[in-house]
Amino acid sequence: MAKKPSIPKGTRDFNPEEVAKRNYIFNTIRQKFERFGFQPIETPSFENSETLMGKYGEEGDRLIFKILNSGDFLSKANQEAYAAKDALKLTPSISEKALRYDLTVPFARYVVQHQNDIEMPFKRYQIQPVWRADRPQKGRFREFFQCDADVVGSQSLWQEVEFVQLYDAVFTALKLDGVTIKINNRKILAGIAEVIGAQDKLIDFTVALDKLDKIGEAKVKEEMLGKGIPESGIEKLQPLFSLSGTFESQIAQLKTILSTSEQGKKGIEELEFIDKAICELKLQSASLELDVTLARGLNYYTGAILEVSAPKEVAMGSIGGGGRYDDLTGIFGLKDVSGVGISFGLDRIYLVLEALNLFPETITNTVKALFINFGETEALASMKAIKELRENGINAELYPDNKKTVRQFNYANKRNIPNVVLVGASELEAGTYTLKNMDSGDQQSVDLETLVALLK
Amino acid sequence: MAKKPSIPKGTRDFNPEEVAKRNYIFNTIRQKFERFGFQPIETPSFENSETLMGKYGEEGDRLIFKILNSGDFLSKANQEAYAAKDALKLTPSISEKALRYDLTVPFARYVVQHQNDIEMPFKRYQIQPVWRADRPQKGRFREFFQCDADVVGSQSLWQEVEFVQLYDAVFTALKLDGVTIKINNRKILAGIAEVIGAQDKLIDFTVALDKLDKIGEAKVKEEMLGKGIPESGIEKLQPLFSLSGTFESQIAQLKTILSTSEQGKKGIEELEFIDKAICELKLQSASLELDVTLARGLNYYTGAILEVSAPKEVAMGSIGGGGRYDDLTGIFGLKDVSGVGISFGLDRIYLVLEALNLFPETITNTVKALFINFGETEALASMKAIKELRENGINAELYPDNKKTVRQFNYANKRNIPNVVLVGASELEAGTYTLKNMDSGDQQSVDLETLVALLK
Repeated sequence: MAKKPSIPKGTRDFNPEEVAKRNYIFNTIRQKFERFGFQPIETPSFENSETLMGKYGEEGDRLIFKILNSGDFLSKANQEAYAAKDALKLTPSISEKALRYDLTVPFARYVVQHQNDIEMPFKRYQIQPVWRADRPQKGRFREFFQCDADVVGSQSLWQEVEFVQLYDAVFTALKLDGVTIKINNRKILAGIAEVIGAQDKLIDFTVALDKLDKIGEAKVKEEMLGKGIPESGIEKLQPLFSLSGTFESQIAQLKTILSTSEQGKKGIEELEFIDKAICELKLQSASLELDVTLARGLNYYTGAILEVSAPKEVAMGSIGGGGRYDDLTGIFGLKDVSGVGISFGLDRIYLVLEALNLFPETITNTVKALFINFGETEALASMKAIKELRENGINAELYPDNKKTVRQFNYANKRNIPNVVLVGASELEAGTYTLKNMDSGDQQSVDLETLVALLK
Repeated sequence: MAKKPSIPKGTRDFNPEEVAKRNYIFNTIRQKFERFGFQPIETPSFENSETLMGKYGEEGDRLIFKILNSGDFLSKANQEAYAAKDALKLTPSISEKALRYDLTVPFARYVVQHQNDIEMPFKRYQIQPVWRADRPQKGRFREFFQCDADVVGSQSLWQEVEFVQLYDAVFTALKLDGVTIKINNRKILAGIAEVIGAQDKLIDFTVALDKLDKIGEAKVKEEMLGKGIPESGIEKLQPLFSLSGTFESQIAQLKTILSTSEQGKKGIEELEFIDKAICELKLQSASLELDVTLARGLNYYTGAILEVSAPKEVAMGSIGGGGRYDDLTGIFGLKDVSGVGISFGLDRIYLVLEALNLFPETITNTVKALFINFGETEALASMKAIKELRENGINAELYPDNKKTVRQFNYANKRNIPNVVLVGASELEAGTYTLKNMDSGDQQSVDLETLVALLK
């Protein structure tokens, strides 16, 4: 016998139950995206390599899956690299296409390529898989879905407000109470760096600050010192470490700290606008919190920075994030298109819903009734009833073979089918159907009309 | 300015309208798959190369997209092939993964890999993209979706009956009247080959017969002669060329032609079972026709062969096909698992619906109302109303910037948004909303409750 087949590491098969659960999340997100006026687009799974390479840093380039050119790919190989056996240098000459690494760069490419057909502001959402040649580990896969919503072409802060509402709407619909939407603003971080005299060390500064939760105040200070941030500056940070209280009181404290920074004040103004609007509009189940340590891919964001944490009872990192970026399409030559967007982390949301037992029970039993097969004549009568049920929107099926009844019941059980219908010789004669509830074991004899009504 | 970006040939971007139309087809197919008791699975986009290679013939192997190993892929390169610059021989040593070429082989792999968790008969459906390095041409892409439903683990002919019904259900739901479901059986073809003394030339014989529609009787006979089928045998074929009339009368004629072939008679019996059941159960909008020239990848099918043609007024090839195969999982070492399945050709169905103008108009205007932005205070009041609308299941949005009204109206027009709501100073004072229908130009002043009711 052949070796049992397997799939590449970091990839997954999804069985019917898993697909149903994933689709429940996808459909909820999709519905809310559309509720908020976002429109779906889809881009190809692979892009020209030049579209992707150089957009995610050196590490990103390494993690992009490259597709080997078809046919005699060696005929165009870089001879020098080939002779030197230099894989890195050889790659561009034998691989012209690469698998999508995220949805953001393809979106930027889409906007630039189709700029004449797009009405700005352009609100798009995209739910598609991406691929990364990362080392697989718990919760990290080589193929996974991203769910992104972005608006490009407007700097209005109402969009940040909407994204906070959108997170709230999705998690409320998923019945996931107690989600925290953390918000920050790059201008706040830049303002702080300015105030402490570390403008030129903004990245080092925020990378260190971002670890406050994990490593504590002392170690953060140590790291900053190590990166050359002056001790006098770090002392000025002190109020930041003890920043606390409500959104509003933190804002008040920030106003003191950042009183000398124009950028910082602009950041405060933006945060205040969003907070005020959310207070007026109210959230359904989530809460909005200011977190000045939040940085998330800072190089990328220019204004708001957002991140969503699962409820505290589940130990799970962020389940979503996003922010504003002022020059997304610049990489493809289209300047001055401001954008803001958010993303949902499907795999982690799945784990959270599973941990809290929040998937509706009904999503996995899609077939309402199995008809037992007692032979050709009975099966034909069953098929007539099944046709009627299906035309009435009821999912139903016939067991295809005339096998032992116990085996057919077993199948209904394993498939999680809640009802079984028996059409045997006596039912055939009487023109009735015996409906048996698989849970309770109750059974009743009914006519077709009643059968339809009961299963509907 | 940078060169305008593009996508690889044979791939496509889908804009919001196209995604909506494609999803309309996907959702209809998905709903009917589930109505008939099929369960969704999903498999990874790429498989281990050994899973795919050798399963689609030499031509297929060539058309499979291979993924370059990550990192220093040359370190494991086949030295001999490298020295000889033999691309074909080098490939397996620098590429271990490949993109899915169809959904059938991954499904077979899935069934074998998960055989202990699967309850037979296993009714699965799968709607995912596949990739082929084919020369792109009109209607042929390098990335396209397949929509497959299969049952494995039962030889019952009720399944063939169900697949005929399933085709009818889907195309009826898509309002595509006049679809023809053509059916044949490999045993009929084998029987004919036997009768004319061409058992050993079954493939040549069917390939020629398959062309009857296109090249006519004379040329088909010529091709058969050329392939070494004896003239005496071809003469015996004569009644086949003039086979006509209803399903039943064709069956009667076949019974005469195939009276000496056991296989042929078995094929007739199977076709009769299916035809009789469909006559009893009736189809809604499609018709079932016997077509003894239908062959479709004959090597693969062992029983029923199915193909669906679009209505005659649209010049389009087949929009679906399938059949029974008796040894799908044998390639992975699991013997004796019979299967039967069908597939829907999404891209062609899309073109047919487009040509006949059958896409519902409503699927592309997903946003019901755009609120015009008159400034911060008005926008906040609008956002409160929008929140109410959204909570009532109505898709609505605010124009994010306080720009000229004409520009905002223009946006509503281009986005195909049917209603605009104005909340200006006077509405704010009166607590009302001005609702304007973009088609008729009619406008009315209403309270929030009425606004919700009107837009619902």
